[in-house]
Amino acid sequence: MSESRFLRACRRQPVDRTPVWFMRQAGRFLPEYRALRERYSILEMIRTPELAVEVTLQPLRRFQVDAAIIFADILPVLAGMGLELEFVRGEGPVIHNPVRREADVEALRVPDPRESVPFTLEAIRLVRRELDGRVPLIGFSGAPFTLASYAVEGGASRHYRLTKAMMYRAPRAWRALMEKLSATVAAYLQAQVEAGAQALQLFDSWAGALSPGDYARYVLPYTRRVLAAARATGVPVIHFSTGTAGMLEHVREAGGDVIGVDWRVHLDDAWRRVGYDRAIQGNLDPAVLLAPWPEVKRQAADVLRRAGGRPGHIFNLGHGVLPQTPVENVQRLVEFVHENTLTEGQNPSG
Amino acid sequence: MSESRFLRACRRQPVDRTPVWFMRQAGRFLPEYRALRERYSILEMIRTPELAVEVTLQPLRRFQVDAAIIFADILPVLAGMGLELEFVRGEGPVIHNPVRREADVEALRVPDPRESVPFTLEAIRLVRRELDGRVPLIGFSGAPFTLASYAVEGGASRHYRLTKAMMYRAPRAWRALMEKLSATVAAYLQAQVEAGAQALQLFDSWAGALSPGDYARYVLPYTRRVLAAARATGVPVIHFSTGTAGMLEHVREAGGDVIGVDWRVHLDDAWRRVGYDRAIQGNLDPAVLLAPWPEVKRQAADVLRRAGGRPGHIFNLGHGVLPQTPVENVQRLVEFVHENTLTEGQNPSG
Repeated sequence: MSESRFLRACRRQPVDRTPVWFMRQAGRFLPEYRALRERYSILEMIRTPELAVEVTLQPLRRFQVDAAIIFADILPVLAGMGLELEFVRGEGPVIHNPVRREADVEALRVPDPRESVPFTLEAIRLVRRELDGRVPLIGFSGAPFTLASYAVEGGASRHYRLTKAMMYRAPRAWRALMEKLSATVAAYLQAQVEAGAQALQLFDSWAGALSPGDYARYVLPYTRRVLAAARATGVPVIHFSTGTAGMLEHVREAGGDVIGVDWRVHLDDAWRRVGYDRAIQGNLDPAVLLAPWPEVKRQAADVLRRAGGRPGHIFNLGHGVLPQTPVENVQRLVEFVHENTLTEGQNPSG
Repeated sequence: MSESRFLRACRRQPVDRTPVWFMRQAGRFLPEYRALRERYSILEMIRTPELAVEVTLQPLRRFQVDAAIIFADILPVLAGMGLELEFVRGEGPVIHNPVRREADVEALRVPDPRESVPFTLEAIRLVRRELDGRVPLIGFSGAPFTLASYAVEGGASRHYRLTKAMMYRAPRAWRALMEKLSATVAAYLQAQVEAGAQALQLFDSWAGALSPGDYARYVLPYTRRVLAAARATGVPVIHFSTGTAGMLEHVREAGGDVIGVDWRVHLDDAWRRVGYDRAIQGNLDPAVLLAPWPEVKRQAADVLRRAGGRPGHIFNLGHGVLPQTPVENVQRLVEFVHENTLTEGQNPSG
């Protein structure tokens, strides 16, 4: 297992083929996932280990992806902190008692993940048994800022107005919130490794809403704390964010063995700025998978060309697979990445 | 008027004070605007020159901003092309007959702006008379990609899935759409200058949804065509986009005397990448204006410090003023920018 392509690439060791996996590879673009979703809600699927295991394994039956990622969601840890989480069909996540004032922050608990999300830890144990060493299993969590944005806004957001207003107007409440979130996330990630996760990804999906200055001042110290705790477990850690092309230096500074970037920056530019002492993950636009195959192939070849065969590239999309994605394109993309792996300095064949 | 700070800065000539204006300075954060909105819809206000003039002038009665921008919207030109545009309260713009197939593109007209948006051209003429040379008047248009995204999605979008799918799957329809939009936008901008606009801003607000490669291939040629037509009028042209920190080199290549950037990149990094042969506009996060004054001041001083007193900086937000913004913060920010103008190489006092 220590020889897996994915784990070797996380550590920037040479690999026989560029490893590839996809955010939301276990998800709505798969008919077998949609069939389960007709019978169960998202939260039921996450909270029932047997269902989470099934969904985690679904993409592995179809594709030769190089890693599994546990089927879970970033928000249930918030429920353990005392927030009333609901997934409303057609609307997305809603938190019925959002955090708006210092008293709201004080009321939040830092839960023991074995009590707040035992189902995900159990699912990790079961998936490891099922995988039996075939590919490594990735655990994950939302990063403090991204979780704070849901906790404060009460759901998805466009301008992150309330979150930013708390940062600026109530710095003490903000600090207390970010400290509780950091402690919660660190414990959650550690528990996932104890349960069997062999790598971790921290999703700071909405960090790109911030200016580089605000990120450095109000967010980076907490992200760094979480990433340090995650790395202390000994497994490789991927630090993923979107919309952060203007502040990759700060993202790097926050930490992570692997920096996951979205498609809004050329991969070679991103890697140069992140530094070659880190691995890099990405970065095809998920929407490209809606294209006819020749266009998918052209763009995937461009990503591989920009990675340049340098050890430490993990192929992925820049964010999750879109629900409308044709399964066949995913299938062909996995094969294409494996068949068109470059060695350093080589030109692409694609 | 040729001596105005704003126009001088657009041309990178030295100025006595850093010019400042705000996107959406005529808008919902002003009580006098909200009072009018209680009586009229957005489209009524845009389509009635006397109301558009009144709203354009409202911020000038309160603030010593260095430019006026005509009160209008980027979408009414689409109505002139044959799209059924409606602003639904609480939902935003809706296009009832979105462009999905090649036949839809073929049905689109390239309207004469004097027929499709005569009200905005008349408002420009009236505002010029009212301003009587006090500050210059900026005209504007949406850029082809941003307009295409509304035309194809039928409104605001999160993933721009249908727009990108058309780019990839129906390149001929996409080209035809972008050509019609480019011709429409070019004519609209030229007509605004003929009516009296003394500078132009092209809003490519959603270009940041694209990868640098897709921007270069599917969008840049059309944006360049529009910007060239705009510059041929002789007035300075501002090329604004958001979320494009990963591809400022391409944005520069598309053109514009002034490159307008959002807050997701440090202004000094952005200017270095854009090149000092262009002026730069930006880039305080609009959410910062929700903060207590000391935080606003700290962050505004940081923007001025990063501009470094170099001729060619126009102070603005990274996008429009948020409706919840306290009027007093805007007032103080204008004064602060004027009072804390640096000369090249000087350190900030702020």
